[in-house]
Amino acid sequence: MSTNVFDPASASVTVLGLGPMGRALATAFLDAGVRTTVWNRTPGRDAELVARGALTAGSAEEAVAASGLVVVCVVNYDASDAILRRETVTDALKGRTVVNLSADTPARARDTGEWAGRHGVRYLDGAIMTPAPSIGTPDAVFLYSGPRDLYEEHRPVLDVLGGAHTHLGEDIGRAASYDIALLDIFWTAMGGYAHAVAVARAEGISAGELTPFAQGIAAILPPLFEEFAHDVDSGTYSGELNPLTSGASTMAHIVHASEEHGIEASLMRAIEGQARRVIGLGHGADGFMRVAEVLGRTRRP
Amino acid sequence: MSTNVFDPASASVTVLGLGPMGRALATAFLDAGVRTTVWNRTPGRDAELVARGALTAGSAEEAVAASGLVVVCVVNYDASDAILRRETVTDALKGRTVVNLSADTPARARDTGEWAGRHGVRYLDGAIMTPAPSIGTPDAVFLYSGPRDLYEEHRPVLDVLGGAHTHLGEDIGRAASYDIALLDIFWTAMGGYAHAVAVARAEGISAGELTPFAQGIAAILPPLFEEFAHDVDSGTYSGELNPLTSGASTMAHIVHASEEHGIEASLMRAIEGQARRVIGLGHGADGFMRVAEVLGRTRRP
Repeated sequence: MSTNVFDPASASVTVLGLGPMGRALATAFLDAGVRTTVWNRTPGRDAELVARGALTAGSAEEAVAASGLVVVCVVNYDASDAILRRETVTDALKGRTVVNLSADTPARARDTGEWAGRHGVRYLDGAIMTPAPSIGTPDAVFLYSGPRDLYEEHRPVLDVLGGAHTHLGEDIGRAASYDIALLDIFWTAMGGYAHAVAVARAEGISAGELTPFAQGIAAILPPLFEEFAHDVDSGTYSGELNPLTSGASTMAHIVHASEEHGIEASLMRAIEGQARRVIGLGHGADGFMRVAEVLGRTRRP
Repeated sequence: MSTNVFDPASASVTVLGLGPMGRALATAFLDAGVRTTVWNRTPGRDAELVARGALTAGSAEEAVAASGLVVVCVVNYDASDAILRRETVTDALKGRTVVNLSADTPARARDTGEWAGRHGVRYLDGAIMTPAPSIGTPDAVFLYSGPRDLYEEHRPVLDVLGGAHTHLGEDIGRAASYDIALLDIFWTAMGGYAHAVAVARAEGISAGELTPFAQGIAAILPPLFEEFAHDVDSGTYSGELNPLTSGASTMAHIVHASEEHGIEASLMRAIEGQARRVIGLGHGADGFMRVAEVLGRTRRP
């Protein structure tokens, strides 16, 4: 057997944080035969994992000491700081690798990167872009940033989590930057879906009746994202097929029809407001993505 | 040859409104060999269509008189009223069928249905859910509402526009209700995408770099729409995998990271506000779609 072949049974990993995502990660490691130690601040979350062969630890320090690779998946960096930045845990982490898959801002990821550097902790930041049931399947999407050699070193064991793994660059904040932008798309789309369902139901249409058509709308997004990305990166905003003025007219219909049912339309009011602002700046014949440019212009110099 | 076989050359249609969508419709009719008369309030939009064989008309009345089926595609119902509700045009429409594919609110569609009934105009309301380039291709999506027999009568000629045609019911406002709900999803998702691109660029990530991952987000929406529709229709809102409290935490990261770059986050602030309101009502352990229920509760009794 070539020494380049990865043997999961020779690897060990500690998973800190046993929410739905942390449990999914630990399960995937265990299913692959990786020696997996688990720990959660609130006890009692590990029964099913222990039944699958997970090792338990009496404390975070003990859990950290059990493996060279520590994967953290908690609600945010306040929560991961509360675990990692206690002196005894920080001491135990020295020389080990932390992969923090918790979600937070790029600034918090960079701050954690600096903390890790000061304490001799090898650090990769990461983000998981798919729901917990995707873990261990080809649908999972993982993003990482930080030292490339560290990523390459741990890539074989991370690969057992399934799906696509992408190293985005050495800037430790980059995974969080992508995470923020992608969750921005996700939650905004979900906000629109929830609102659309409320309006449809007020019109006597069930969510189930709307679903196949809503899925049709989701299906037209990927090619539009590509086309619109080109608009933004090239600074050309062709509105030939769908000028902002026409879009704003439709947005006004949505606001009006919602409020006629007494359903607040704060999201669509905000979007229409952005569109009207861009029209007011003289870009009414442009396509919708001129909005992104004008939003970005509000950046501090 | 069976008499049931539709011969496009025996059909005739008038298209009122020659914006990008009206031109696409007329082009598809012409390509199928349907005798097509075109008219637009502002002249000069028909040159390419005439070159393809379209007939022109000196006035809306004349255009209407040329065909038994009149397809209207203008910016909204103020614009279609301005064409159709002039006495000479209304007189010319008597006994003919109008299919209004313009976008507006369900209330406006119902009002137009009543107007048509009073004037002996046979009326179908409709909506086009896909961009102009989809017309004449399998990707096009058309929705209709109104008398089913009228829909069945004109279905063969409408079919030459390509794609999927769905009759949603006899309630004349139903196509507009679906249209509003689906455009609500579309424009909200686009608002999220534009904002995400602005934030990504502030973080040094080009729109093109973000695109494949943004497309990955779009790809996870269809199964979630189905799952979440079930939540709403059944009144169960499982937050086991992703409780609202956890979603709201992520929304706060997005607001924070945006505003650190001086990029306004009015949409995400509105979505987070809805989530926080629902958490405040005691539903923090539920899934996100509880938002739809609470939005709908604001309906007037």
